[in-house]
Amino acid sequence: MADDSATTGFVMNQTMLRVRDPDKSVAFYRDVLGMTELARYDFEEMQFSLYFMGYLADGEQVPEEVGERAEWLFARPALVELTHNWGTESDAEFDGYHDGNAPPQGFGHIGISVPDVHAACERFERLGIEFVKRPDDGKMKGLAFIKDPDGYWVEILNPKGLRAIVA
Amino acid sequence: MADDSATTGFVMNQTMLRVRDPDKSVAFYRDVLGMTELARYDFEEMQFSLYFMGYLADGEQVPEEVGERAEWLFARPALVELTHNWGTESDAEFDGYHDGNAPPQGFGHIGISVPDVHAACERFERLGIEFVKRPDDGKMKGLAFIKDPDGYWVEILNPKGLRAIVA
Repeated sequence: MADDSATTGFVMNQTMLRVRDPDKSVAFYRDVLGMTELARYDFEEMQFSLYFMGYLADGEQVPEEVGERAEWLFARPALVELTHNWGTESDAEFDGYHDGNAPPQGFGHIGISVPDVHAACERFERLGIEFVKRPDDGKMKGLAFIKDPDGYWVEILNPKGLRAIVA
Repeated sequence: MADDSATTGFVMNQTMLRVRDPDKSVAFYRDVLGMTELARYDFEEMQFSLYFMGYLADGEQVPEEVGERAEWLFARPALVELTHNWGTESDAEFDGYHDGNAPPQGFGHIGISVPDVHAACERFERLGIEFVKRPDDGKMKGLAFIKDPDGYWVEILNPKGLRAIVA
């Protein structure tokens, strides 16, 4: 890179997905994937809310004061930002968000690295989560894809499992 | 969370975006956003390649051996995975990927936290990067959106700047 110092301190902070029903989506990212709701912001005038989901390190505390929490949040890597445009959850005419995998394609998925793909997926089965690909389906064994409540794909992968595929 | 231990060790590893021309996209994420190409994997039979882009910590080294590198890579947080389906870059009929912000909406953006939004954006201007929103445009001052080579939105934000907006 020619211009190293110009990008010093840059952090890949967030991936934003629009969601129809924040109750369902927050529950999925929290209870199914094990993230924490690190912050929620409501924008009354613009009629939307943001939910920031992420993994805390062991014993890590979320700052309680709202300003301190925001500075902490927006310096962190690897958040999922869920955007809720108010009303979609109860709008029978709303035909859902686009997952990026059906045409027109673009965004593909987020991917969660887990200690044990089969154990994680057995738990997802018990929780009634929809699968796109089970770990032993298809050519790439040992990795799975599940769907979040809006149909966005979530890859479930493991470092040793991916090593076996790519190396 | 009812079931804490079941998700211990889960990591938000990656966000996957399909790209038309990997030369342009790798150059953007590397030279404009300051990420490193941490690994590239080519799948001959399935005719696609993956480019994993991410930020290295100061002094951090990428393992050289391919297997060791894969295990290291797929345990890390906050990667951008660029998927190149071979041939799109030279296919005049290919009409591009969908950014998720034009209808049908879904995925919104990735967001990069930077030490100084205005300085970062002045540099992006010099580099000829396309803007969706400049830092002083619109209601939310001090944050910007630029476009990657496929038109995916990249938010440019700062922790103190976001604190001023949300707190």
